[in-house]
Amino acid sequence: MTLRQNLRTLLLVGLGGVVGGSLVLALGARREAGAALARESEPLLSRGQEPQAVSIRGWEKGKGWAWNWGKDDEVGALNALTNESRAAALAQAKTGQVFDLGLTYSRRSYKWPGHSPGEIITFRSPDGVHRMHDADAPPLESNPDLVFWHSAAMFISDNVATQIDGLAHITAGPDYPWYNGFTESEWGGDWGPRKCDAATIPPIIARGVLIDVAAYKKVDALAGHTRITKKDLEETLAWEGVSVTPGDVVLVRTGTGRFWGEDGADHARIGEHDSAGVDLEGTKWLVAEQGAIMVGSDTSGYEVNPAPDAPGTGIPVHRYLLVDQGVHLGELHYLEGLSREKAYTFCYVAAVNKIKGAAAGFALRPLALR
Amino acid sequence: MTLRQNLRTLLLVGLGGVVGGSLVLALGARREAGAALARESEPLLSRGQEPQAVSIRGWEKGKGWAWNWGKDDEVGALNALTNESRAAALAQAKTGQVFDLGLTYSRRSYKWPGHSPGEIITFRSPDGVHRMHDADAPPLESNPDLVFWHSAAMFISDNVATQIDGLAHITAGPDYPWYNGFTESEWGGDWGPRKCDAATIPPIIARGVLIDVAAYKKVDALAGHTRITKKDLEETLAWEGVSVTPGDVVLVRTGTGRFWGEDGADHARIGEHDSAGVDLEGTKWLVAEQGAIMVGSDTSGYEVNPAPDAPGTGIPVHRYLLVDQGVHLGELHYLEGLSREKAYTFCYVAAVNKIKGAAAGFALRPLALR
Amino acid sequence: MTLRQNLRTLLLVGLGGVVGGSLVLALGARREAGAALARESEPLLSRGQEPQAVSIRGWEKGKGWAWNWGKDDEVGALNALTNESRAAALAQAKTGQVFDLGLTYSRRSYKWPGHSPGEIITFRSPDGVHRMHDADAPPLESNPDLVFWHSAAMFISDNVATQIDGLAHITAGPDYPWYNGFTESEWGGDWGPRKCDAATIPPIIARGVLIDVAAYKKVDALAGHTRITKKDLEETLAWEGVSVTPGDVVLVRTGTGRFWGEDGADHARIGEHDSAGVDLEGTKWLVAEQGAIMVGSDTSGYEVNPAPDAPGTGIPVHRYLLVDQGVHLGELHYLEGLSREKAYTFCYVAAVNKIKGAAAGFALRPLALR
Amino acid sequence: MTLRQNLRTLLLVGLGGVVGGSLVLALGARREAGAALARESEPLLSRGQEPQAVSIRGWEKGKGWAWNWGKDDEVGALNALTNESRAAALAQAKTGQVFDLGLTYSRRSYKWPGHSPGEIITFRSPDGVHRMHDADAPPLESNPDLVFWHSAAMFISDNVATQIDGLAHITAGPDYPWYNGFTESEWGGDWGPRKCDAATIPPIIARGVLIDVAAYKKVDALAGHTRITKKDLEETLAWEGVSVTPGDVVLVRTGTGRFWGEDGADHARIGEHDSAGVDLEGTKWLVAEQGAIMVGSDTSGYEVNPAPDAPGTGIPVHRYLLVDQGVHLGELHYLEGLSREKAYTFCYVAAVNKIKGAAAGFALRPLALR
Repeated sequence: MTLRQNLRTLLLVGLGGVVGGSLVLALGARREAGAALARESEPLLSRGQEPQAVSIRGWEKGKGWAWNWGKDDEVGALNALTNESRAAALAQAKTGQVFDLGLTYSRRSYKWPGHSPGEIITFRSPDGVHRMHDADAPPLESNPDLVFWHSAAMFISDNVATQIDGLAHITAGPDYPWYNGFTESEWGGDWGPRKCDAATIPPIIARGVLIDVAAYKKVDALAGHTRITKKDLEETLAWEGVSVTPGDVVLVRTGTGRFWGEDGADHARIGEHDSAGVDLEGTKWLVAEQGAIMVGSDTSGYEVNPAPDAPGTGIPVHRYLLVDQGVHLGELHYLEGLSREKAYTFCYVAAVNKIKGAAAGFALRPLALR
Repeated sequence: MTLRQNLRTLLLVGLGGVVGGSLVLALGARREAGAALARESEPLLSRGQEPQAVSIRGWEKGKGWAWNWGKDDEVGALNALTNESRAAALAQAKTGQVFDLGLTYSRRSYKWPGHSPGEIITFRSPDGVHRMHDADAPPLESNPDLVFWHSAAMFISDNVATQIDGLAHITAGPDYPWYNGFTESEWGGDWGPRKCDAATIPPIIARGVLIDVAAYKKVDALAGHTRITKKDLEETLAWEGVSVTPGDVVLVRTGTGRFWGEDGADHARIGEHDSAGVDLEGTKWLVAEQGAIMVGSDTSGYEVNPAPDAPGTGIPVHRYLLVDQGVHLGELHYLEGLSREKAYTFCYVAAVNKIKGAAAGFALRPLALR
Repeated sequence: MTLRQNLRTLLLVGLGGVVGGSLVLALGARREAGAALARESEPLLSRGQEPQAVSIRGWEKGKGWAWNWGKDDEVGALNALTNESRAAALAQAKTGQVFDLGLTYSRRSYKWPGHSPGEIITFRSPDGVHRMHDADAPPLESNPDLVFWHSAAMFISDNVATQIDGLAHITAGPDYPWYNGFTESEWGGDWGPRKCDAATIPPIIARGVLIDVAAYKKVDALAGHTRITKKDLEETLAWEGVSVTPGDVVLVRTGTGRFWGEDGADHARIGEHDSAGVDLEGTKWLVAEQGAIMVGSDTSGYEVNPAPDAPGTGIPVHRYLLVDQGVHLGELHYLEGLSREKAYTFCYVAAVNKIKGAAAGFALRPLALR
Repeated sequence: MTLRQNLRTLLLVGLGGVVGGSLVLALGARREAGAALARESEPLLSRGQEPQAVSIRGWEKGKGWAWNWGKDDEVGALNALTNESRAAALAQAKTGQVFDLGLTYSRRSYKWPGHSPGEIITFRSPDGVHRMHDADAPPLESNPDLVFWHSAAMFISDNVATQIDGLAHITAGPDYPWYNGFTESEWGGDWGPRKCDAATIPPIIARGVLIDVAAYKKVDALAGHTRITKKDLEETLAWEGVSVTPGDVVLVRTGTGRFWGEDGADHARIGEHDSAGVDLEGTKWLVAEQGAIMVGSDTSGYEVNPAPDAPGTGIPVHRYLLVDQGVHLGELHYLEGLSREKAYTFCYVAAVNKIKGAAAGFALRPLALR
């Protein structure tokens, strides 16, 4: 039993939950429920005064995650997910309430213009199959009931709508190394990167924390180019009465997602706010000080644009997260429902498409469970 | 409180779990855990002797789900998912163990030849961006650290790898009506069906049941064209000591998935077994008698091929499920891990890509939580 | 010297333009050669005073081409091309000078937004093949010289850059009939129209006439929405000293093409002029009175937009040409070179991609030979 | 009668084939016209006894074309095309007869499996536009005549059906240089090679020569893997009574194209013969001794497969032509019509799609004019 588990047990005990040895596994849910309750009932603890002795495999306070998982590792910080951490996160899902964090993608959806466009096209239509009598169509004599089908062919980018960037998405420096030092000359490919593609991203089940900066600032959505600093994050968390613990998925809300509407067709409106985001210092605080195992937001890039202080690249936060820390990055998560219900902590569940060579999971539907 | 909930409460009570009123919400997990325990500790109950008075909204024993959700409904049986049902399902996830039910998709993957082919192509490579200095590339003076990126463009079918068929996938009869009577002449489209596309499939969180026919039959994988009957399903469930309850996701294992390997490249081997599947009677028993809210398997089509008894179409089970019952259909789910660990019940979690016009969720990574 | 060359010489020497009735059909080639000479040496003749007795199979003055080629015909007016007509057209190519009428297509190219976008993506790169050692790559032991390859995968519309609309492009009326009465319910398809697709367009070799309206009007390019009328066409032809004869391909220059540049990236500039075009009356005059076998221009739509006089559709000229007359329609032809050299007549040669199901030839490179 | 026609007559009447030195360059057209006549009336001349003093810019007998066109050149041997050479070639088109050398491409077409697959998909259908009332559809009030359209979206390789390989298609050696020394590290790109793409291939108009090896060997089609040697080419030309002159496009017939049928769907039959082709020595003879400006065949690769004599690569002929000589390579040309009519010489006309980044022209419809 790890120190952290001890701590939790202690909390449970202190709250009146007596947990006998043989019951521990069966009652994991209760244990965590207690822990969550503890956190939320003691908001004063969550600021200034960091929880003592909190630990998680692979993470070091002040340093973060880095490349600690062996030279062949393609998973990064998510290696720290364990049965215990998942069970604890799932135990937060007490009511069965589910928040769909996915935005709907269509050909009209807002996206960064540097990504390839998208079309979802009817490939087979029932009348088409019926008319064409092609080799794939069932012969009418064995199909008197006229049973046919729809299918679609898609031309689609791996960086659209609700997404989780894989660790190969960003490279930094000569020969273009990405997380864990995989280089283009060795691991690049015509059909996507051959290390750290989306198929290597494990299912993500972790405690989620919403940092609702827009709500704290009392705006519908932050203005474009708003820089979200460490101070903003700290103040918002304090206002929420919530703190981040190592292993959490942290989602930062700017309010941009409220303009997505049916399918992100109002590019002007979304674009007006989409450049608000967290700066490098704030992100480092989340990861290296608080232990976030993944961060995300409701914008297409998470980080503030343009990047302040010209740190050698226009996307310092992407580099820090994906390359330096091996921390996956969630983008365009729909956070309006969570905000509306002040659901600041939850169980975050996401499983990206298992597509070899994709650099990111796209058009996802991550879930927040309560 | 519904009758079913009463029943569950009763079980909990009878098993020694005293649940005080104010604790009910917080301890939803425990309640269900008790129910699961009851089922598993009393396997004799699970056969012949159906649980009494089990009820779920929208489902009628003997009839199934049908079109009970209003004339505009696009969701079908999944409407029956509730906070309570989800909480009960999630309570099964006691240990944090997660089974990834997704198969990896690549250009080489086995698929029905009538679906469009797939390519995942490097759209932007770091060296490409660097060399090309195109409009999307950061100017080198503001990017001295040479930070670049990978992205992929995909041409992909909505019916590949691990998938969940949407309710518009299959049509039956003149003017090609699908679930709830939506017709091609009104709701067809160039960019996918305009009712019941994949974007309408809600997150699926439900108790999952594996019916491991291959294990029961003591074979690695069923022979091609093997017809799985109601009797096979009943016997396998009895052998497992498990029963289906209304609202469950039922996954039937043929063993075909074991041949998928890294990315489904061995078409001959997969194809040799892929035609084994459940027949119409067996499927009706699962849905109309047992209350399955979704069914699936580890083959590309779930139903046995060719269909026995020529019932007016070559895919009577697809029609029954998708058109008549509004029951989503899971295909190519990877069930080997569950089988190996005899994990016959679990919490099933799946969230399809949220893509407007797609007829199915594709290249998915559904999860089985224990 | 062949018999034909002898005859041509004879005509050139002594003809004077009068062609006896019984010779007309048999001597199409000669007639044209004579006509061309006559026109060029006698510009005054070309207006008001139409050439006598000009005839061509399938065309009737005042009525045009219509559906005269049998109920299965997919070719339309181009059926009138014969060895004789081609030989006569080719005889215009005296100097070997060639004008490339194709505009370069790239992902950035201007197009009507209702067409699907385009990407040309490196599918195999030599370093990619080298690195990946995949099944398609030659084993290094049999490839010590490191011979590799580039190939591209494209996602592309059949209606981009220099194009020739096929006869199935436009439909008019209930059940969507196109040229020759082919209807959607019978001949539509999931993979393009099954009658009159681009693969049915024969090689086009015919006398070409440039009607350089922009030059006649002494502007770089006509203003957007400029309506080119019959009078404009007549006056421009008179100014050029050229007349149209039955069987000619007529290209009308607005000057819009001059803004295409390297690859049509300046959408604003092109869009400013692209709506200039020929009106319905002018087009009818070209086809039904002058015998044009194909018409085209340097804009994306040929016809003026919006269509004046609201004739039941916003694209009356497309309907008239493609549906009513079976006359193919050329778009975005690059005419600046011809204009610069006052090359008002030439031999037009175009051969569209032979792709089953494409509704048009795209990214073409038609030639004008002199 | 024009000056040129006079000159031609003169040549025809009195020439006899002797062309004075200073006239050679200026009178290329005439020379060719004379040569053509000579060849056809004096077949005995065409063997052993090479035409004297034949010269063409950029070509040297024994050496071929090589990299003679300046360090920025992307065009290669086709630079030698001139107004004179084109005029001479076009002068062969006496009868207006046209042979369509294009094979029809569809999703079913035979291709090398290492190229990306193809789909031509209805993007807009008239009923789809009508039903969907989307933003691109005309409002019904301004479209009472129900005028709609078909368009297709294509996912297609640049190396399918009738094609002409661009000079960037093949690279040889470290850093992957192609024709003229353009290297991947400088001129590669994500969106196709940035030098020598298909958009740089000029219109090709040249005298064409068919070397009908299959007819000479009296077979429908050469057996798979048949090696066509210099001797085979010489004997076939002698049997035809034809010789190659510098600047000619040479097409070698194996008979494979006869199995293409409607759209190349019979892969087994085509594949049985497709590996027959010309060897390196034969190709060198055509290019370096005879002056072919382009070569091609009716197979997917032109060269015999496997390559005999293991010369450091499996595709020595591709390397020789594209890299070393800058000679474009035609593939899958349909030569059955030419063979049937014993049309051994003709005017070859081809204009590849003008698509930036494509490595080859694809699904072409080159023409042979007589």
